[in-house]
Amino acid sequence: MKEYVKVAVDAMGGDYAPVEPVKGAVDAVNANEEIFVYLVGQKAVIEAELAKYTYPRERISIVEASEVIETGEPPVNAIRGKKDSSMVVALNMVRRQEADAIVSSGSTGALLVGGQVLVGRLKGVERPPLAPLIPTAKGVSLLIDCGANVDARSSHLVQFAKMGSIYMEHVVGIRNPKVAIVNIGAEEEKGNALVKETYPLLKACRNINFIGSIEAREIPEGKADVIVCEAFVGNVILKLYEGVGATLIGKVKSGMMSSLRSKIGALLVKPALKATLKDFDASQYGGAPLLGLKGLVVKTHGSSKAVEFKNSILQCIQFKQQQINEKIKEYILPDSEDKAKEVE
Amino acid sequence: MKEYVKVAVDAMGGDYAPVEPVKGAVDAVNANEEIFVYLVGQKAVIEAELAKYTYPRERISIVEASEVIETGEPPVNAIRGKKDSSMVVALNMVRRQEADAIVSSGSTGALLVGGQVLVGRLKGVERPPLAPLIPTAKGVSLLIDCGANVDARSSHLVQFAKMGSIYMEHVVGIRNPKVAIVNIGAEEEKGNALVKETYPLLKACRNINFIGSIEAREIPEGKADVIVCEAFVGNVILKLYEGVGATLIGKVKSGMMSSLRSKIGALLVKPALKATLKDFDASQYGGAPLLGLKGLVVKTHGSSKAVEFKNSILQCIQFKQQQINEKIKEYILPDSEDKAKEVE
Repeated sequence: MKEYVKVAVDAMGGDYAPVEPVKGAVDAVNANEEIFVYLVGQKAVIEAELAKYTYPRERISIVEASEVIETGEPPVNAIRGKKDSSMVVALNMVRRQEADAIVSSGSTGALLVGGQVLVGRLKGVERPPLAPLIPTAKGVSLLIDCGANVDARSSHLVQFAKMGSIYMEHVVGIRNPKVAIVNIGAEEEKGNALVKETYPLLKACRNINFIGSIEAREIPEGKADVIVCEAFVGNVILKLYEGVGATLIGKVKSGMMSSLRSKIGALLVKPALKATLKDFDASQYGGAPLLGLKGLVVKTHGSSKAVEFKNSILQCIQFKQQQINEKIKEYILPDSEDKAKEVE
Repeated sequence: MKEYVKVAVDAMGGDYAPVEPVKGAVDAVNANEEIFVYLVGQKAVIEAELAKYTYPRERISIVEASEVIETGEPPVNAIRGKKDSSMVVALNMVRRQEADAIVSSGSTGALLVGGQVLVGRLKGVERPPLAPLIPTAKGVSLLIDCGANVDARSSHLVQFAKMGSIYMEHVVGIRNPKVAIVNIGAEEEKGNALVKETYPLLKACRNINFIGSIEAREIPEGKADVIVCEAFVGNVILKLYEGVGATLIGKVKSGMMSSLRSKIGALLVKPALKATLKDFDASQYGGAPLLGLKGLVVKTHGSSKAVEFKNSILQCIQFKQQQINEKIKEYILPDSEDKAKEVE
């Protein structure tokens, strides 16, 4: 078999399973010849979906899994109890290196637990962060960590900064990415206990381009490429991004419907506006990787459609070819910092 | 002298001092007969500004203060060192009950320190939170705490919930306001250590209408009236609100300029859009009170214009007439909860 990038797609996870993950898989193999997809889930259901499409049959294979993990289930119970669920089966394929990556829009909690328990952490990684790309005025930034590790310690945040840097440089292609820590003021002495403890550690890191604190106001401006924070704050940032955006767009739309004059105007601006707002839609940028695991685990939004599945699958190519995990292993250990620098 | 609501305005604080605070004071006394303003700052400068306007002269008085606290100064040094600054002089007027309230758009840090050190906390209040109103799809919500107390404890958050409830009910006029705690999921077992500890305490509070967790996504929807969080998270929410809003509006505007067709449309929708977006502008809702002090301390945005000063000054009327501080004293002590409930 040719050296494909093999992606196990959880065909039963998310709000629109199996329709959208299956369509996303088909679109991905049609878009790129290096991709091989395992569709994991209930065979009959997946076959019925697949029958709708034309695609290179040698690059999609169905893997049977009889159970489905539901959104509300306690993560640990779900992973332990449902050994034959699409998510657990797909995670085990990554563990056994039968697949390079898993893409799932199922329960975030279950995927975080399963990623750590089944796939396992890379040597030296203390906590694997979930790191989505968020849109900014200038392009995208990586928000790390965004839900995996509440009550993190400063050493975790330093590792997030390093892993995020590697990801932005080698997967997204930003040279010497700017790293900043989320804070409530620009000065070094500002912040809560965690930030005050982490700041000097980041400053001392020689293999990242640390630019200091970033205030939340500056995040959408694109002031930094890698936004470091602990998971609670990261989750608030991600969710509020969506929330303010949605409410504001809703207000703009209803404002435009308020008079005959503005209704006519709305018809004229609609196409241009739609294209603009698409740029600011987080779902355009693929899924969020759970970094620092022995394999790639990608979480896509629960309401992902085919385009997000496709983008998330294609994302795996860069991740594998750029040998991100090898780079993480090399840079993650504190005492390897100076050595790594010398080698450069 | 008639029983005025007496407000000491820091005429030298903020980006547009003295022009905007002086104009705001004039507008406030012209708008409402119950307001008396002390303009605190350099007399000659303030007199020159005041000369531009017509207003009831018996309701504005200048109080000389020779120094000015700058934005960058370390708060404690500023408050201790500049005894004759406009902010310190105004705070001391509140301490001596010569004024009911201070309104300042000077250094937030200095005002927080000065509020606690000079005006002092009400009996029973552990930490005074800064609590701005933020716009939502339904109106406004109170975000409490938003910068005053990083690394807060659960007992502080419970007090914030109580003080915020009183403020929303009696100053803003929301009956039985819904109180929620910022969390990263809806379930009671979700959250970081602080939230997990605080949640059951809020649930046990009998004199607030606690509705559980609120995810950041739901804040702009207006799901709760009082949004409880510790200061670091609150600051991130407030700043990101502004940041996402500004970036998105910028994108909408440039999107509309992208073709001739959309440019014509933009001219037609402009007035309607402007009115809509004004609703979503936090500055429309007056300043943020620092609750739980022996007097009212109101912080307005550093870039406040006359309209925000005016609104912040007028806000003081409700605060005084509704005897907010008396209500806080009554409700704040943990052991008074049940008694207070019985009295109702």
